[in-house]
Parts: sequence; structure tokens; C-alpha cells
Amino acid sequence: MNSERPRLDPAVAAVRLAVRTHLTRARDEGVLADGNLVLVALSGGADSLALAAATAFEAPKQGLLAGAVVVDHALQAGSEAVAERASRKAAALGLAPVVVDQVAVGTAGGPEAAAREARHASIARVAASEWSPLVLLGHTLDDQAETVLLGLLRGSGPDSLSGMAPLVRPDRPGPSLGRPMLGLRRATTRQACAAAGLVPWDDPQNEDPAFTRVRVRSALMPVLERELGTGVPEALARTADQLREDAAALDHFAEEMAEDLAEHSEAGISLSVPGLAANPPALRQRLVRLAVEGEFGVTLSRTQTLEVCRLVTDWHGQGPITLPGVTATRVGDRVLFAAGQAQPGR
Amino acid sequence: MNSERPRLDPAVAAVRLAVRTHLTRARDEGVLADGNLVLVALSGGADSLALAAATAFEAPKQGLLAGAVVVDHALQAGSEAVAERASRKAAALGLAPVVVDQVAVGTAGGPEAAAREARHASIARVAASEWSPLVLLGHTLDDQAETVLLGLLRGSGPDSLSGMAPLVRPDRPGPSLGRPMLGLRRATTRQACAAAGLVPWDDPQNEDPAFTRVRVRSALMPVLERELGTGVPEALARTADQLREDAAALDHFAEEMAEDLAEHSEAGISLSVPGLAANPPALRQRLVRLAVEGEFGVTLSRTQTLEVCRLVTDWHGQGPITLPGVTATRVGDRVLFAAGQAQPGR
Repeated sequence: MNSERPRLDPAVAAVRLAVRTHLTRARDEGVLADGNLVLVALSGGADSLALAAATAFEAPKQGLLAGAVVVDHALQAGSEAVAERASRKAAALGLAPVVVDQVAVGTAGGPEAAAREARHASIARVAASEWSPLVLLGHTLDDQAETVLLGLLRGSGPDSLSGMAPLVRPDRPGPSLGRPMLGLRRATTRQACAAAGLVPWDDPQNEDPAFTRVRVRSALMPVLERELGTGVPEALARTADQLREDAAALDHFAEEMAEDLAEHSEAGISLSVPGLAANPPALRQRLVRLAVEGEFGVTLSRTQTLEVCRLVTDWHGQGPITLPGVTATRVGDRVLFAAGQAQPGR
Repeated sequence: MNSERPRLDPAVAAVRLAVRTHLTRARDEGVLADGNLVLVALSGGADSLALAAATAFEAPKQGLLAGAVVVDHALQAGSEAVAERASRKAAALGLAPVVVDQVAVGTAGGPEAAAREARHASIARVAASEWSPLVLLGHTLDDQAETVLLGLLRGSGPDSLSGMAPLVRPDRPGPSLGRPMLGLRRATTRQACAAAGLVPWDDPQNEDPAFTRVRVRSALMPVLERELGTGVPEALARTADQLREDAAALDHFAEEMAEDLAEHSEAGISLSVPGLAANPPALRQRLVRLAVEGEFGVTLSRTQTLEVCRLVTDWHGQGPITLPGVTATRVGDRVLFAAGQAQPGR
């Protein structure tokens, strides 16, 4: 007679540990309280299925409820059946409630962005109706590495290079989003499913080379690993962590300084030229972007921001700068941002 | 009879414009003064040859002298003849003086790093003996993109991701280093040589897949461009510009704050715990690295830095942390860095 307990599969243990650590952190940061419902965003793929299983196991141990939201994007034939199967698996894991939400995906920003937009809106809606303060997403280290690489290759700046944050608190009313598995490889979630006898759904879109992300995954990553040795995804994820910290620090200083440099008036918002000039370029640009975004909800491109900064660093009497819905004008020792377009000839 | 002047080749014009702008900037920043000698670091390859030709043309127009330094790494058979041919081309372009310097390349840090180290030492030596305050290097946008990609894939952090700066002033006595062509593609320098009838030397090491950089150039970049569309090198270079700005801003704040938080004593240097705690992680880490580097000349890894930071953010009475040649100990509300290793059992 052997009284040993069956050994826990290391992949299952790794996913559970990641979820446990994440839930503890979310409690420490005041995102979760006793008895709250944590929702898992479940596609039925290996990542979210492994996450669902681990959450079903860990949440009750921390006095939390665990449910799932299955978003049916209705983009492929049979998507309803896929969502139905995923929701049955979630229920079998002991998750409750399990909500299936069918959405209509638009076209704005391309197919990937539109699907993400619709998915996030659905998640927020279901979380609100179920009073869930935290929705867990199944992104892994591989997803993080792909995100960084995509951002890098598009030259879209440090913000997109910093990848996905493990815990995002909402700007407007809505749930926080948690990504407990950003430190785990995709192979681990797959192994965790296999060890638990869970059969994941393989989304055919994950193989469709029409998607840039799929090409990054299937064509680029293997070449990178072949030419530069293994550990490339980990290196990319590590870079993202550091860039996220750097961006957060600069945002922190910009927000602190904005209080001193910015003045609101009937005309709009203005920033002090000597104050802008005294700061390093990265801060100056953030102060400009912050003022325009905060006052007018307009996000400036790098080119636009640099042009505004030339009103400070390269001032030779140039006229107002026309930005989308906003005009930037140098008035004495201030840069004034006002709604609307500059008058021609002014 | 046609009185039109022959049209200047656009590639030649682009390289000249880049050099002209760079020299103007170096003068504006006080790096160069009237009558100074600007040296071009010439390998004989297309990049540095195009740079030499443009500098020979532009420097005299700005009241500057233009010379060249040819470093013979003596790593390949016939390197002396290659250096000799390069120096004859430089002289034919009107550069004077043209100094050939043969160096002994060590092995520390691998072949690429050792060659770079020897080259930079030679350049500094020749610049000193010729009283040249500025040495121009032939790096192009493609080199910048490769540097960023290499840094990214090694996960070596934002510093190496920010690539090469266009103008680097020395920390210790020595020449400034200028890179006028970081905005130009390699194809432009090649075309500029062809248009000027200059025959560049093709370094066989540029084709040797033993070098990581060569693999990045020949195996990775083409796949990146194929899978993600053209413009990848430009995107990488743009990212580097932004990251360099961000890093400079954070370094600026860290240096400013270090004055308030750091205290020197006989025991070493100490930092205020409340001061460190009040700053975002990216700043906290920079303050720690800055203190240890400034006091002991030791560069901490990210892992080591994070461990020191836990003396601030996760303090539970842990003992001294052993760093290379330095020990970090929490003493009351300060973190003390002292030379040497902690006593066992302490």
C-alpha cells in the first residue's frame, strides 16, 4: 500500500502559484476584498483554460469566488458551439457564474484591434453586472514577448514597448484587469491542461498568417531563437518590465510637475516656457502630451509633440501650431493650448 | 552648348547635408571651434568612405580642418595593405593628416567587444596627438537598428536599447565622438561612393556568421522586413531615439536627487531609506546604481539592484547583501554601501 499522494504536475503547480501570488497582490493593493468574485476571461484555449482551472482551485482558498466570462466574437462559423463548450468546461471546473456574452465586432482599427475592443467592452459589462472587481486574462510570457516585438518593429515608442502590465486599474468605472501568467511560458499552460485532462480548443485564427501577431509568432520568433540562441522571449519580457518601470517614473514626474507648470484659463490650458525649458526633452514632451490629453482628450503623435516643443527650444516667432481640434500658440513666456483651429493669416 | 552644372547625386547630397548639420551642431554645442581638426575614423568600407568624402568637402566650408585615422586591427592577413589603401584614398580626398595606427586587439569580452575597445583607444590616442576635439564615426541607421535589436534580444535593458547617440562628449579627457549618418541608410552611403567613383573595401568579417551582428543583419532583418513590411530599421532607430531621451531624463533626475539622498562617510556612502521609498522603482534603482558606481566603480546588474531595493521596499531584518567588492547593509533608516565583503555570521 502506498500512502503517498500523487505528485502534483509541475506545470499545474506553476500556474497555481502564479494565480495565488497574483490574487494576494490584488488583495494587498485593495483591488479585491473577502467574498469578491474573480472572473476568468475564457476562450477555451490552453492559456485561459489553465488559468480557469488554477483560479477555481486558488480563489476559494483566499475566501474569493471564481467565475468565468466567455466572449463569443461571432466571427467564425461555429463560434457559438465553441463558446458553449468553453462554458461547460468552466462549469465542470467549479466556476460559477459562467456567463457567455455574444458581441458584435466592428471594423475600426483593423480586425485584431476591433476584436480586442469588443472583447474588453464585453468583459467590463459582464464584470459590472456580476459585481466582479477583477477579471483575469490568460496572457503568457510569449504573448508579452510578441507584444514587445510588434511595438518595437512598428517604432511606436516606449509605451507600446513596455508591453502589458500584470495588473491594470481602470481609469473609468470598470473592473481591474489581471494577468497572472505573464511570467509563464505558453508550453507550461499547455502542459498544465494536459496534466489535468483538459482538452483546449485551438483557435484556427492563431494559425492565420493574415494576422501580424501570428507571423511574429510563427515566422519571427523561431528565427530569432535560432540566430540568437534561446531565451529571446524571456529577454523581451524582461525588457518590457524595465521599460514599464521607466515609463511609470517619467509619468509620475510629469504629473507632479504639471501642477506647477500648468495654468487653466478661459482660453484653455497654458504651460510655462521656462518650466518646460528647464526639463529634459522626455519630460517636456510628456508635459505637453499630458496637458493636451487632460484638457482636450486628444493624444498627440511624437511629431506633433516635437513641433510644439520647438515653441520652447527653437523659438523664432513662429505662428500657432494646428493640432487635431487644438491650437498651440506661444504667448509671452507661456505656450497656450486652445480648442479649435488657428485663424488663417493670424 | 549646355551651361547647366552636372546635377549632384542625391546620395552624395544627403551625406554632405548630414555632415554639415552635424558639424554645425558640434560647433553650437562648443565641441568645435574655428580652425579645429575633425578626424574621420576610416575603415575603407562604404560607410566611412562616404563620410570621409563628405567631411573633406564640408569641413573647409566651416573653417575646419579634416583628417582621418585608419585603425589597423591586424586581425586578418593583409590588414596592413587594407589600411594603406584606405589611407591613400583619404589623402586623395584631400584629408590631412591621415594617420594609420596599428593596434593589438585583446580577447576580453569576445572578439567584437575587444576590437571595439582597441579601436576606441586608438582613436582617442590619435585624436590627442593631433589635437582633434571630434572624431566622426560612420555608423548608419542600419547599424543603429541592429544595435537596438541586439540589445533587445539580449534583454539587456533600456540602456543598450537606446542605441548609439549622435554626439557623445567624453567623461574623461579625450575627443567627442560624432555619428553624423545615424539618419541615413547603408544603401545611401554605398550609392554616394559609387556616384563619386570611390571603390569601398568590403570587410569579409561583415559576412562572417560567427558574429552575432552579422547574423542579425543577414538573417534577421530580411525576415523582419518580409513579415512586417518595410520600414523596420527606421522604426527601430526611432524607438532608440525615444528611449535615449527617456533614459537621459531619468538619469538627470537621479543625479539631481542623489545630492539630497546620499551621504558620504568614512564607512562608505549611504542613501536615505525614506528618500528611496518615496521615488518610483525606476528612480530608486538608478539611485542605487549611481551610488555604487560613483563610489566604487562597480556596475550592478538588475538582479543585484533589485535585491538592494528590497532593503527598502521589503524590509524584514534581512542581513547585508554581498555585491562585487561592495556590501549593502540597512542601518536604521539608511542603506549603507561599504567596500569589502560582509563578515560571515554577521
